[in-house]
Amino acid sequence: MTAATGSAIEARSGQSARREHILDAAEACFVRNGFHRTTMQDLARAAGMTAGNIYHYFESKEALVLGLAERERERGAALVGQLASGGDRRAVLMGIINQYFVAVSRETAVLRVDLWSEATRNQAIAAMTERFDEEGRGFFIDTIAALATSPDCDPASLYEALDALMRGLVVNRALRPNYDPAPAAAQLEALLDAGLAGRLPAPSVPVLETAR
Amino acid sequence: MTAATGSAIEARSGQSARREHILDAAEACFVRNGFHRTTMQDLARAAGMTAGNIYHYFESKEALVLGLAERERERGAALVGQLASGGDRRAVLMGIINQYFVAVSRETAVLRVDLWSEATRNQAIAAMTERFDEEGRGFFIDTIAALATSPDCDPASLYEALDALMRGLVVNRALRPNYDPAPAAAQLEALLDAGLAGRLPAPSVPVLETAR
Repeated sequence: MTAATGSAIEARSGQSARREHILDAAEACFVRNGFHRTTMQDLARAAGMTAGNIYHYFESKEALVLGLAERERERGAALVGQLASGGDRRAVLMGIINQYFVAVSRETAVLRVDLWSEATRNQAIAAMTERFDEEGRGFFIDTIAALATSPDCDPASLYEALDALMRGLVVNRALRPNYDPAPAAAQLEALLDAGLAGRLPAPSVPVLETAR
Repeated sequence: MTAATGSAIEARSGQSARREHILDAAEACFVRNGFHRTTMQDLARAAGMTAGNIYHYFESKEALVLGLAERERERGAALVGQLASGGDRRAVLMGIINQYFVAVSRETAVLRVDLWSEATRNQAIAAMTERFDEEGRGFFIDTIAALATSPDCDPASLYEALDALMRGLVVNRALRPNYDPAPAAAQLEALLDAGLAGRLPAPSVPVLETAR
């Protein structure tokens, strides 16, 4: 390795560390004050950098929001990889559910609820969360199909039920400081087991007309 | 009734109608642009009134947010009253679940996700949503206790599981324009039936240490 390529690598890892540092500062600001009440000046102060310097890494506050969402996605993928190297597929699935939804920190839960709220009206954020949701859906449905012990197991329906329960866990974690996820988590596992064994009731609840 | 009391009543009902009109305009603005990007000028334009006139009814944007939350609570209470006059308690419970969580409109779902997001950092909104959640919790737990067919039914644990599933339905309705709530709604009813019959698995899932 020449001195030139060595310092290029150092510069890149320095850049990557600074990006991480800015994302950490943004995460803390967003959790405390929300996306809209956080200014680039707040972010600069929290990161101990100039706003100009932050713009060098992220062109806008929206880019920071997307950067945080992307980082969460990378962490999820890393978790899948890490768990997959160790255990069986059911253990991997339960590990993901536990770490990503049940034992999620309040800060991460608040950011996710904020992101959902933003996704309802920001196209770029909606596109990114939709893409991540699709990846998650793919992982869950493949894993469920592989683990199914009955031909009556319907992976897509089972995923829909699990998905709603998992999102609700995140909302409760964000809203209730002393939230105990154990009762809902137990139902999540029971639902998974029933679904894999093909004992999931068919979707037959009459849905009333859309209320206000 | 004197002419004076008659016109006082008219004035009051006119005031109440104008309050409703302002809340409708605020709801439309908030769903479209969120709380933070909506200005009092936007609200005035949407309501066809001056900002000064709006301040006569609501002292701040936060008061409008709280007014919308309060209106949603009143509608929930009216729905309970209306359903309760007709059917048995199980039908009332399923009616509430259907209208309030399963068949909720996208606009209402978006507002609820926004409200949850705000509640994580605004004390007044947090206090109000917590109070509403406590009322809902009380209604559900009382109804579950009355409907239980087994001494093994644990109303509080059952409510926790139902609550997470119901919140997740709302998030999905807000995020996915063509969301089909039927699979999750079927699980909700199955969960309720299992819980009432005391067949709910005990909360025993090992919760891993809190992840980032």
